[in-house]
Amino acid sequence: MTTSQPPADTGFLSPVRSGTPAEAATTDAACLQAMLDTEAALARVQARLGTVPESAARAIAEAARAEHFDLYELAVQARGAANPVVPLVRRLTELVAAEDADAAHSVHQGSTSQDILDTGLMLVAARTLDLVLADLDRTAAALARLAARHRDTPMAARTLGQHAVPTTFGLKAAGWLQGVLDARDRLRRVRGEGLPVQLGGAAGTMAGYLQYALLHAPAAAADGGQRYIQELPAALAAELGLAEPLVPWHTVRTPLTDLGAALALLTGALGSVAADVQLLSRTESGELAEPAAEGRGTSSAMPHKRNPALSALIRSAAYQVPSLVGTLMQASVHDDERPAGAWHAEWAPLRDCLRLAGGAAHTAAELTEGLTVHAERMRANLDLTGGLVVSERLAALLSVELGRAEAKALLGRASAEAATTGRHLADVLADALAQAPAEAPAQALPEALLEAPAQAPAPAGRRSADDLRKLSDPGHYTGAAGQLVDRVLGRFRLDGRADGRTG
Amino acid sequence: MTTSQPPADTGFLSPVRSGTPAEAATTDAACLQAMLDTEAALARVQARLGTVPESAARAIAEAARAEHFDLYELAVQARGAANPVVPLVRRLTELVAAEDADAAHSVHQGSTSQDILDTGLMLVAARTLDLVLADLDRTAAALARLAARHRDTPMAARTLGQHAVPTTFGLKAAGWLQGVLDARDRLRRVRGEGLPVQLGGAAGTMAGYLQYALLHAPAAAADGGQRYIQELPAALAAELGLAEPLVPWHTVRTPLTDLGAALALLTGALGSVAADVQLLSRTESGELAEPAAEGRGTSSAMPHKRNPALSALIRSAAYQVPSLVGTLMQASVHDDERPAGAWHAEWAPLRDCLRLAGGAAHTAAELTEGLTVHAERMRANLDLTGGLVVSERLAALLSVELGRAEAKALLGRASAEAATTGRHLADVLADALAQAPAEAPAQALPEALLEAPAQAPAPAGRRSADDLRKLSDPGHYTGAAGQLVDRVLGRFRLDGRADGRTG
Amino acid sequence: MTTSQPPADTGFLSPVRSGTPAEAATTDAACLQAMLDTEAALARVQARLGTVPESAARAIAEAARAEHFDLYELAVQARGAANPVVPLVRRLTELVAAEDADAAHSVHQGSTSQDILDTGLMLVAARTLDLVLADLDRTAAALARLAARHRDTPMAARTLGQHAVPTTFGLKAAGWLQGVLDARDRLRRVRGEGLPVQLGGAAGTMAGYLQYALLHAPAAAADGGQRYIQELPAALAAELGLAEPLVPWHTVRTPLTDLGAALALLTGALGSVAADVQLLSRTESGELAEPAAEGRGTSSAMPHKRNPALSALIRSAAYQVPSLVGTLMQASVHDDERPAGAWHAEWAPLRDCLRLAGGAAHTAAELTEGLTVHAERMRANLDLTGGLVVSERLAALLSVELGRAEAKALLGRASAEAATTGRHLADVLADALAQAPAEAPAQALPEALLEAPAQAPAPAGRRSADDLRKLSDPGHYTGAAGQLVDRVLGRFRLDGRADGRTG
Amino acid sequence: MTTSQPPADTGFLSPVRSGTPAEAATTDAACLQAMLDTEAALARVQARLGTVPESAARAIAEAARAEHFDLYELAVQARGAANPVVPLVRRLTELVAAEDADAAHSVHQGSTSQDILDTGLMLVAARTLDLVLADLDRTAAALARLAARHRDTPMAARTLGQHAVPTTFGLKAAGWLQGVLDARDRLRRVRGEGLPVQLGGAAGTMAGYLQYALLHAPAAAADGGQRYIQELPAALAAELGLAEPLVPWHTVRTPLTDLGAALALLTGALGSVAADVQLLSRTESGELAEPAAEGRGTSSAMPHKRNPALSALIRSAAYQVPSLVGTLMQASVHDDERPAGAWHAEWAPLRDCLRLAGGAAHTAAELTEGLTVHAERMRANLDLTGGLVVSERLAALLSVELGRAEAKALLGRASAEAATTGRHLADVLADALAQAPAEAPAQALPEALLEAPAQAPAPAGRRSADDLRKLSDPGHYTGAAGQLVDRVLGRFRLDGRADGRTG
Repeated sequence: MTTSQPPADTGFLSPVRSGTPAEAATTDAACLQAMLDTEAALARVQARLGTVPESAARAIAEAARAEHFDLYELAVQARGAANPVVPLVRRLTELVAAEDADAAHSVHQGSTSQDILDTGLMLVAARTLDLVLADLDRTAAALARLAARHRDTPMAARTLGQHAVPTTFGLKAAGWLQGVLDARDRLRRVRGEGLPVQLGGAAGTMAGYLQYALLHAPAAAADGGQRYIQELPAALAAELGLAEPLVPWHTVRTPLTDLGAALALLTGALGSVAADVQLLSRTESGELAEPAAEGRGTSSAMPHKRNPALSALIRSAAYQVPSLVGTLMQASVHDDERPAGAWHAEWAPLRDCLRLAGGAAHTAAELTEGLTVHAERMRANLDLTGGLVVSERLAALLSVELGRAEAKALLGRASAEAATTGRHLADVLADALAQAPAEAPAQALPEALLEAPAQAPAPAGRRSADDLRKLSDPGHYTGAAGQLVDRVLGRFRLDGRADGRTG
Repeated sequence: MTTSQPPADTGFLSPVRSGTPAEAATTDAACLQAMLDTEAALARVQARLGTVPESAARAIAEAARAEHFDLYELAVQARGAANPVVPLVRRLTELVAAEDADAAHSVHQGSTSQDILDTGLMLVAARTLDLVLADLDRTAAALARLAARHRDTPMAARTLGQHAVPTTFGLKAAGWLQGVLDARDRLRRVRGEGLPVQLGGAAGTMAGYLQYALLHAPAAAADGGQRYIQELPAALAAELGLAEPLVPWHTVRTPLTDLGAALALLTGALGSVAADVQLLSRTESGELAEPAAEGRGTSSAMPHKRNPALSALIRSAAYQVPSLVGTLMQASVHDDERPAGAWHAEWAPLRDCLRLAGGAAHTAAELTEGLTVHAERMRANLDLTGGLVVSERLAALLSVELGRAEAKALLGRASAEAATTGRHLADVLADALAQAPAEAPAQALPEALLEAPAQAPAPAGRRSADDLRKLSDPGHYTGAAGQLVDRVLGRFRLDGRADGRTG
Repeated sequence: MTTSQPPADTGFLSPVRSGTPAEAATTDAACLQAMLDTEAALARVQARLGTVPESAARAIAEAARAEHFDLYELAVQARGAANPVVPLVRRLTELVAAEDADAAHSVHQGSTSQDILDTGLMLVAARTLDLVLADLDRTAAALARLAARHRDTPMAARTLGQHAVPTTFGLKAAGWLQGVLDARDRLRRVRGEGLPVQLGGAAGTMAGYLQYALLHAPAAAADGGQRYIQELPAALAAELGLAEPLVPWHTVRTPLTDLGAALALLTGALGSVAADVQLLSRTESGELAEPAAEGRGTSSAMPHKRNPALSALIRSAAYQVPSLVGTLMQASVHDDERPAGAWHAEWAPLRDCLRLAGGAAHTAAELTEGLTVHAERMRANLDLTGGLVVSERLAALLSVELGRAEAKALLGRASAEAATTGRHLADVLADALAQAPAEAPAQALPEALLEAPAQAPAPAGRRSADDLRKLSDPGHYTGAAGQLVDRVLGRFRLDGRADGRTG
Repeated sequence: MTTSQPPADTGFLSPVRSGTPAEAATTDAACLQAMLDTEAALARVQARLGTVPESAARAIAEAARAEHFDLYELAVQARGAANPVVPLVRRLTELVAAEDADAAHSVHQGSTSQDILDTGLMLVAARTLDLVLADLDRTAAALARLAARHRDTPMAARTLGQHAVPTTFGLKAAGWLQGVLDARDRLRRVRGEGLPVQLGGAAGTMAGYLQYALLHAPAAAADGGQRYIQELPAALAAELGLAEPLVPWHTVRTPLTDLGAALALLTGALGSVAADVQLLSRTESGELAEPAAEGRGTSSAMPHKRNPALSALIRSAAYQVPSLVGTLMQASVHDDERPAGAWHAEWAPLRDCLRLAGGAAHTAAELTEGLTVHAERMRANLDLTGGLVVSERLAALLSVELGRAEAKALLGRASAEAATTGRHLADVLADALAQAPAEAPAQALPEALLEAPAQAPAPAGRRSADDLRKLSDPGHYTGAAGQLVDRVLGRFRLDGRADGRTG
């Protein structure tokens, strides 16, 4: 039933992340290497501060390579202490001792499993976020192009699945972009200052680190270690490219909650893009199509189908990440100086959040860069309801002339008739208005309005069907869509510069 | 940063399942093999029913071995169609064609990705549940032994962390057993009738299967396929040892919800055992200890520690499974004839639930079979509060003699004095009662009570400290604990027989 | 900012349950009354068993009416002991004492907060489930009617949002029904045997109940209380119409997990109905419409809109219930003899699950009983793709004649041409086949097939466009849809009988 | 079973929030009032910008009082449109019309339900956060006092429930404070800039608002409304004390995700405090006690108990909020221009998060301000293990003298002997060292160390038990605990100033 080899999972059941950069950055091997990098960096900074011999730090760095370790063996041995760092340290010590017996004394000096594991996972997160942010930059740029290109492409806005009023595809793309920029903001912030090294020793007092400093480093001993316990975490943070914590955070799990929340924000934002692509590429709608590619969207049963596969992948991540973040939040209640279960429950969900969100970001870059927009289908669908999609506008105009109640009643009757007969709402209204009594003269509308055709209505009352048809052109009732697109594009350019990037 | 090999995760971040039977049964390779087993079984039953040549079925069965497939390649190709079955079928067809070109036409005949994937996952679930149930049998037997052995071992019951009244460790173990038996019930039921094959074809109408039957099987064609579409799923279910569905369940996800709920019930029950072991093995309590083993409970920083590692592993699963089941439940809203994301979101969480719960069950077997019980510490802790732990009993007795209000007031004062002075509650009460006026004579208590020492109180009023001390012996106020233990043990024996097993 | 009155929430933010039967059955007042009913029933059965005077039981029953209690005062006082039963008992005792001082001694005799609260919530669940089951009966009956009426109404099956193959609306309705029947099954089972009374006393040993029995009931004392502790829960269960537990379940939370899981299954099933209604009532699809009603589906901005409001309500519940059940599952890890937080975390989510699921069921009854089906739009949409929707069928037929690879290639080319040119696939294929060489004669198809027009294909090779058009009529390729509908209807009838109801 | 009145829930099942400020700020009435405040403010700013008559704005403001509305009626009517704003606007219009028929035309002008509901909920969030932040200020100040007062009070650090090394209670309190400050940071940020008004009109294009401006406000019409659509949201935000959004966020749900995440961070941080209080107030530990108060911690069954009720309340919130935030995150996938269910699913969970977290904050203020610390029990417990709690230190010292392997082996043997015999580790070690061969001379330790008694070890080798006992005094091995406390207190003071408050 199973292979005789050690279990070795790829993304077979999780294609959203298969073969993506985030997957490569979050493998077991990558996690192991990050923990080993932490051990090596710790020895290096301890050497710099005088509590470990330089030669020992070098020996540790040389031994600290994932390829010297048997991942599966570590995983099984991890059951003994309920964490993988204990066997990792044992094996690392053996490897170092084999080269330099004295150096072995310096392995993991003053440290504790949680310091290595937490710092290692922060390192994995940092490396993965760099990749995710790159994919978000691609996605944001693609969305900005779509928003700019289709700034004034009219389409039907739908609420609760029904045509509501016109909008533009540019505004839809700008909304997607807004969500992506929000998520990118949070992730940049987390990447910049939210991923601290962990350095507390057995129970967060740093006693072990300090004890060895007092024993081995005369300089540290001179002030009872006061400066040492400041310099050690600062140096380790600099060494690993992580943030410096105010104090150890063994039981204060803010970094995980912040990271998780930002990743859930991301999958929510990308999930919204995917959901829209799915709805708008339904056979009946046909307004969007996913980028075509060899083998993409193939069905095993139906030769003609082109499934929106990228969207499905993205949404599969959007379903999973919130629950995983929920686990991180539940487990953030950390009791004692290290809880028996809550800490252990964080590791797998954290990694899964990173790789699912990262896979979704990579997939979204591909989706948005190649998205096909069928503006003509958008227009055709917009006309499906024979003018009903601008009934809000007509209600406003008529209410000026007829009063609100009268206008609403008239429009209600006309809409019903239009829906039943299939006639255009403008025609029905023109007939109805023609029969209305003459004593309600059309109120003059400001001249200025007439010069801004997209916004400005001609007076509506007692008008020909032609006039009414012009007023009910959905393409002329997109409100401030264009300006709203411009604002989001402004933010996009600003955010790009703020980060030293160009959009 | 990462290896050049394909990503290959073991349980490095999830030691609760590392090296356990459930892990082996749920690897990517095991999932792939289960899907291949489904393809092979489908061809076999189609052959039996006449729609596929026998020789083709044999060729398919021979090709359908996981070792012929590159898991990582499949995983990456799965992105194209958003599921791994499409490349699996392509590769399987190539393999078959290489041996027998005609047989290739019979691969996946009339089928669809979801039929193979859903059935494959049900098969993985079935195989894993068999292993989980075996570990639950071990766990239940171990708990039954503990409950029987300690049926009358008194210990303090704690509510909200405070000593409440006495109980017995046997009753605690019986409570654990009750939870495990409940979960085993649900899992047996799911295993027996809740894991159906999926056989609906492209959109649940079975049209593809039927079409080929009409083309190739004269017998099937004779009645327009009426019998055929009944026999095909029945035969496939029998072939794979799964349940026969009433109809295809592409969008009715009851099997996943039921399975997930039963697994969450299990991790909740095992999590309760683990939480109790943790609390009772705290340094201050010392009533329980996890089984000692080479390397178990080791700390990387503190040489003296023996951590309750098994409990921590179990709880790590109990934190994760509910959220994963939450994803399954969220994703159970399946729209159209196959949703674009909700279906895809099920696979990884389902597998993770199985292996986390399975890992927890295996760990629980080890924990409960080797649990050390320190009855003397239980007794010592029970005496910590100097009689306060039986204040409920004294309140009842005194209320008969003094009236409820008077008794409660007296006991309140005496408890406060006992807590402050450190004197035993019985001594304080004896003094207080001696000073009470004589006009409230002790009500006679039924003679019968005096013959059942564990339950029966001697009359309390106006009594010596000695008498009151006897009445306040915690070991004599364990209520119906023994009988309640017996009932759970009765269920345990009955459940064992019902399943053809002995406890 | 706020009113000066006590906080008093209705369903203002949760319209899915506003004004529904489930809401009325789960108010704070209903919960309070259920706890009071439990106190009254406990006294009654204690009286029957001789440990409480009959007159006291009567006095307690009279006082135990919600209208005598100030809910808000109880709620605030509940903070003192972290549960509302402590002030409830205090107030109940006062009320009883005011009428009969002696009877006050019998209030809550031998009991504990958790017994009253757990039993009270089980009672609320039971009463609510009766109402939910009634709404499910209505819903199931409505779906059965839809399935029967539209057994053979063809429509497009969609997978990942794209037309896949034909199905029937009857099969879709049967799928909905299947989900509802599954949920009804689980809920009936939970209602029947899954809602036990709780009767453990202070820490689950029943010591308090037993102590009073030994003091007051000579008969109970005769056997040391052995029979008494069996009879007490049995009598209470009978009195309240709940199940009899094997043992107290203070820390074994199976009833809540089972109930929660069944309710999540329900909202998932109803959510799928709602999601389909939403998709199929989109402006572009128009295949379904929610029942029209005064004020239903109104928009505050757009006079013409008719929103699928009932579906939106149902889905709002389907989003919330899984997370709430997740809380119940997380909190099922119950440590000690009563945990400090996990128990307290159950009450509100349990109630919310009941009322959200109950509100969804009531809404679903209204939705399904009045659903409008536009069979002609289903047919029109089915024809949108010019024959592509039956390409699976044509692939099967052609593969018999041309071989699988050749057939697939031909169909691929023809599909692409049809999609590009807008010509019907049958016409394109007929042209292509006409140009094919003559040496591949059409294989004879079984005569029998020709007599069953819905299923049986005429041979396809070298055929006129007319023949091919007939073969590609979507209405003739619905597979076993009709028979599958019949099976689900069979289950519906059986389930109705099993429960003593008619469908 | 239920009352004949409208359903009216208080916190009967949720005592963590009963009677707290957050509860009062989040009632249905408070939510209704916030929506009415939004309608009134909208009219006011429209009046200021010239699109609504001043008199109409005044009439609307007068009518917009919650007491004029029947909450339950609105809740039931909300079912019609699936949201409560539709009946709210209808009733508001009636109320205004009754006073001023013309003004009624200006109610909800250009607006949509989502604008009112989203803005209203942001207003509720803002008002509640102000109260939550006040309670967090109290809590932070109380924790800062505890941390300062107990900066050097030694206690046992526990990892996985076992004594690990010494720490100080001050450091524990500083850890709690750190979590609270983190949460306060996020909540301040959300309050300051994360709660924007919503102002998009029917589908986020602002078309309705713009249309009326063009019709009624000559100034607005002059530039085609360009400035108007900037000024309207800015003015509304200023009017309501909320943030100004870049663009409408109908489908970009960042504000809810950010708010939810910050609240979950808070309940996680407070939950950690509560969990520690529970563990340390267990009968066996007795290091902490909750503040005593009339009626606090009462048990309905056991007269002697004082339950940690406040902690239980806080943890009940910590269990619930993560799941509710999970719902918000799941529902953040917003499709179309308004989804049919995802939006509707946000309201109740958002409100529940606010009131649960707010209730927890209020409860935490009470808990931390009155927490009783038993320093003598901390010390006594620290000595329970006879020196084992400093074995890390002894291992470090001995490894200098004996080498790491030898030291570890010696300590392992001595720890085992100490544990078995009950002798103090120092005595056992002294004996063992006395028997060691003389050729391993004690390495001289830096003189400087000897002057810093808390940190500096005297050389350990070949020493008397007395010397070793001094070295193994747990109070002398608290590492950098004091300095770490100081750092957190420094942040507390800085954060207080940053916010214009004093700690």
